[in-house]
Amino acid sequence: MQRYVAVVGGGDCSPEETRTAEQVGALLARHGAVVVCGGLSGVMEAACRGARGEGGVTVGILPGADRAAGNPYLSVAIATGLGELRNGLVVRASDALIAVGGEFGTLSEIAFALKLGKRVVGLSTWELSRRDEAILRASSAEQAVRLACEELS
Amino acid sequence: MQRYVAVVGGGDCSPEETRTAEQVGALLARHGAVVVCGGLSGVMEAACRGARGEGGVTVGILPGADRAAGNPYLSVAIATGLGELRNGLVVRASDALIAVGGEFGTLSEIAFALKLGKRVVGLSTWELSRRDEAILRASSAEQAVRLACEELS
Amino acid sequence: MQRYVAVVGGGDCSPEETRTAEQVGALLARHGAVVVCGGLSGVMEAACRGARGEGGVTVGILPGADRAAGNPYLSVAIATGLGELRNGLVVRASDALIAVGGEFGTLSEIAFALKLGKRVVGLSTWELSRRDEAILRASSAEQAVRLACEELS
Amino acid sequence: MQRYVAVVGGGDCSPEETRTAEQVGALLARHGAVVVCGGLSGVMEAACRGARGEGGVTVGILPGADRAAGNPYLSVAIATGLGELRNGLVVRASDALIAVGGEFGTLSEIAFALKLGKRVVGLSTWELSRRDEAILRASSAEQAVRLACEELS
Repeated sequence: MQRYVAVVGGGDCSPEETRTAEQVGALLARHGAVVVCGGLSGVMEAACRGARGEGGVTVGILPGADRAAGNPYLSVAIATGLGELRNGLVVRASDALIAVGGEFGTLSEIAFALKLGKRVVGLSTWELSRRDEAILRASSAEQAVRLACEELS
Repeated sequence: MQRYVAVVGGGDCSPEETRTAEQVGALLARHGAVVVCGGLSGVMEAACRGARGEGGVTVGILPGADRAAGNPYLSVAIATGLGELRNGLVVRASDALIAVGGEFGTLSEIAFALKLGKRVVGLSTWELSRRDEAILRASSAEQAVRLACEELS
Repeated sequence: MQRYVAVVGGGDCSPEETRTAEQVGALLARHGAVVVCGGLSGVMEAACRGARGEGGVTVGILPGADRAAGNPYLSVAIATGLGELRNGLVVRASDALIAVGGEFGTLSEIAFALKLGKRVVGLSTWELSRRDEAILRASSAEQAVRLACEELS
Repeated sequence: MQRYVAVVGGGDCSPEETRTAEQVGALLARHGAVVVCGGLSGVMEAACRGARGEGGVTVGILPGADRAAGNPYLSVAIATGLGELRNGLVVRASDALIAVGGEFGTLSEIAFALKLGKRVVGLSTWELSRRDEAILRASSAEQAVRLACEELS
């Protein structure tokens, strides 16, 4: 079965995070994985742009009820109208999660994924005070994608 | 913007409903519309099979947490873990809805779509005692797809 | 275990529906049932007013994120931010449902409740073209409450 | 308007966390606040027991579809069938959140509450590597309740 990997991170992000997310997206597409995200800008958009550049499939699960809010690199845009509660659906829809930087929304996704027993790979993202070993740390996009995809084989 | 049209109906359905749903899916794909559905068998599967046969894109929004429950004709399968509450997401994600036959789940989707002001096209499906004119009736797959896609142009 | 009965119907309703809903709420409270509703005006508010007048407990599951939108007769107001998708939660939270009149939102709740196998009692509400026997018809608030509460004993 | 304060923490917890949660619940009740929680055992149950002991109102928003899974100290139990996604609803329904210890589920609630701009008070709970000042730290149940209730006045 095809892998679905969420790429999560800030809607605003640094140039370096943008580059990393784009590489992550591209590599996931080369691995044949579907990129799942929250559908908006920043890390989400960069990952989608990377994936589409390699012919990959990208899914955006949007907070609002209007599909037009999605970034232009979505193969499929799912308008939910759930607001930030859609973060939980991004996680549910995915087999593993790669976090690039990120703010509180990203932390909610990391925590929810760990609660559901899904693999979480971190790239310069939140550290967890109580169970930090639960996040697999990667120092490059290549390593992050390898860790995210290994889990499932 | 690309049209997203939900095709809803029973997970079990008659041979005639299967044929109709498959035609609806095929015609939606030829119109360039994305087929959205609940991701399971019956009308959902037939519509996806029709769409994929024409090179279309299909999205299944599944009730369970396991993507493997999706029918084999899904381009993208979204596992939600929401149970039947995912019916609301099928509607939210779509611009219009075509109902083919169907039971109570289908009726919930028809009603929810009308509540949200989305166009509903019916093919041998529920009649509404109080506001039946709210459903556009079609007597063929062609007419149904035309009505569903017209709405949006 | 205490019974939870949803009272559903229009946010705008006729004087007669208001009277009926208020009686339904009062009788449910006398039966010791918790009244669940969508938390807004019309039938929802009338049922809550009736229940509170008899010392009952009322729960409103609101579409918006702001609890202040709830009617003044709610013992507990749950702000969800889910929009109309909260209709599914009104049903999930209840053991049975009494529909008084109502529009498309009410129909979505009736259909969803029947899909989940919950008892639905109708008071001058939607008729179902395909499986109308699935709704238990009541001609008075007393009968409606009796039917809704019998189910569970 | 009455305050709604979520008390979140592990379904399994230490005797000390149990005592703290029970005190938090009792003090919230004395402040006239409604205690919102995930409805299960551990910190959730202790907070509810504390609140009910002081005549307070407690609301459990349950992951499953069966209300019977709720702890015995719930004034109102809301069965959702949403699984862990109900964590988002616990936060949505509340004006502020007090976290007592906790695991990944608790972290998801803390993060989601901060994302939504709600006040989060921590009692021996997760520290946040990137924005730890976002959590108000309390060293006693009294201080936690004061901080949670101050926010809203």
